[in-house]
Amino acid sequence: MSKIVIGVDLGGTKMLAATVDQTGNILTNDRSKTQPADGPGAVIERLATLCEAVAAAAGRSMKDVEAVCIGVPGGINEETGVVDIAPNLAWENVPLGPTLAKRLGTRVFLDNDVRVAVQGEYAYGAGRGTRTMLGVYVGTGVGGGLIIDGKLHEGNRGVAGEVGHMIIDPHGPKAKRGNRGSLESFASRTAMERDVRALIDSGKKSVITKLLKKKNRTRLTSSIIEEALDEKDPVMTKVFANAQYYLGLGLANVANLLDPELIVIGGGIAERMGERFVAPARAIAYEHFLVKRDADHVRIVATELKERAAPLGAALVARRRLAKPVTPIAVSQLLDRA
Amino acid sequence: MSKIVIGVDLGGTKMLAATVDQTGNILTNDRSKTQPADGPGAVIERLATLCEAVAAAAGRSMKDVEAVCIGVPGGINEETGVVDIAPNLAWENVPLGPTLAKRLGTRVFLDNDVRVAVQGEYAYGAGRGTRTMLGVYVGTGVGGGLIIDGKLHEGNRGVAGEVGHMIIDPHGPKAKRGNRGSLESFASRTAMERDVRALIDSGKKSVITKLLKKKNRTRLTSSIIEEALDEKDPVMTKVFANAQYYLGLGLANVANLLDPELIVIGGGIAERMGERFVAPARAIAYEHFLVKRDADHVRIVATELKERAAPLGAALVARRRLAKPVTPIAVSQLLDRA
Repeated sequence: MSKIVIGVDLGGTKMLAATVDQTGNILTNDRSKTQPADGPGAVIERLATLCEAVAAAAGRSMKDVEAVCIGVPGGINEETGVVDIAPNLAWENVPLGPTLAKRLGTRVFLDNDVRVAVQGEYAYGAGRGTRTMLGVYVGTGVGGGLIIDGKLHEGNRGVAGEVGHMIIDPHGPKAKRGNRGSLESFASRTAMERDVRALIDSGKKSVITKLLKKKNRTRLTSSIIEEALDEKDPVMTKVFANAQYYLGLGLANVANLLDPELIVIGGGIAERMGERFVAPARAIAYEHFLVKRDADHVRIVATELKERAAPLGAALVARRRLAKPVTPIAVSQLLDRA
Repeated sequence: MSKIVIGVDLGGTKMLAATVDQTGNILTNDRSKTQPADGPGAVIERLATLCEAVAAAAGRSMKDVEAVCIGVPGGINEETGVVDIAPNLAWENVPLGPTLAKRLGTRVFLDNDVRVAVQGEYAYGAGRGTRTMLGVYVGTGVGGGLIIDGKLHEGNRGVAGEVGHMIIDPHGPKAKRGNRGSLESFASRTAMERDVRALIDSGKKSVITKLLKKKNRTRLTSSIIEEALDEKDPVMTKVFANAQYYLGLGLANVANLLDPELIVIGGGIAERMGERFVAPARAIAYEHFLVKRDADHVRIVATELKERAAPLGAALVARRRLAKPVTPIAVSQLLDRA
């Protein structure tokens, strides 16, 4: 059997894995719950089991796996394989790389979840055929990654892509991290939750209170946002439009600076709602382009791969680190059966 | 004699030209007044005379000049050599390229003034030895250009680099062109002039009224800004600090997104005042870096070449368009005798 690599997206809620062969074909994918409350040891064991499962489904044993690459939601040390900090997992200084490598008997690389997602979307998703693309991920925060001239723009200190921390209004709200009035402080799910609460607290009627109870949730999830919008809830409608407005301004800023071919919006809300989330932000962005004439030459679309972008991107990174070039040409049509 | 190229910066007030030989050495440079009120014909004749003068000073006739490249302050058509629009010259649809080519009997290329300046600064000035650099030019507007991985990032529509149109506060002032609350609307010389006038009109005492009269000026020039600051004028001091604050936020936004090695601040104020203009903006920028630890790994400096950046950059562009690679190695030491 030909050798494969495994790409994994390690999230706070779920982990997703995909196998990719030597020519870039996607073979299998699977998922598992993360349950970080059980501690790093249990999570790493679940990761190992998931890797074995996707390999087995592809008809391979771990001996056929050249490398595993994990997209981690936090700061990592690429050399040592240690996760420095991952707030969504409540991890600090966890030696994920060496532990998993020993358990599986294969090489394990770590990378950042947003960086692998943008590379997956670029190679296998909405970015196919482009050269310069920005990925913007709207979730609890707002993350981003840049592909310039066909490769990830890492930056001088290796920290490029932080579109979420672009200041859009210095008098704006303070986000959990980063700058006051940043894109994240206006357009993240956390920002929407804050704005929804403030309106409800000020006496505005909203179905969201009922929806949170029904679903036994305390946080505003993408599905609750969608249900509230479906019910034409005035609070959610207003807050959603406000987030889209600031997202649009942020996209215009980046487009005026970089003039990319494509901006892809990812993250839970975009995955769930697609154009319903993206279209109004795109309209605001186009209004604020300096060169409006050809505004639509900068395409702004929702993620095509959704949650599969990150594990596929991680697999590409694994291949690259093994120093074997990947050829993701003409594999897009395999996505649906993968 | 070996062949040379001529690079020209065509400004609204003055035109500057430089000759560069085949190995990238700077030979001569000179200048002339533009006097655009005399009309395009007279300006083009002055350009021709200036080109002949710098060539003669280098011991060459126009037969030894392989090409001339002009950095134009406006929109140009690279193919036809027509200046579509250049507000500072009051030009519209001026066939600068073909007219000058016929007059001089050599090839003439056109490019944008900011783009050639950033390339000059990169190859011969503060950017030497870097790979990724942003040039920000603070003048009547705020322009910019990006060097990524050693080459100008032109963008998908060819309009990348518009850092001046980044929205920093959507409730901010409206600039002459572009977006409300853009960096340009806060930090350009035009914005400073507006803010100075507003404070004086509101009854604040300022030496600027006297300085404008003494110099027989109606517009706030870089030299008047400097003199007013020297005299510790409270209005100018306040307005200057405000512009630096917003410039700093804009630099932080770009740095968080692109993580460049270097940001070079050019334009009249930076040319005249250097660190006095740049240092406070840098401090504000560093405060707003997402990764503060290594903030100083992103250098932020004033232009080294000042007004020589654009003609030298134009000469490089001429060489490149002639498809002959230039080698600007070890020529920096020639700058002072050029």
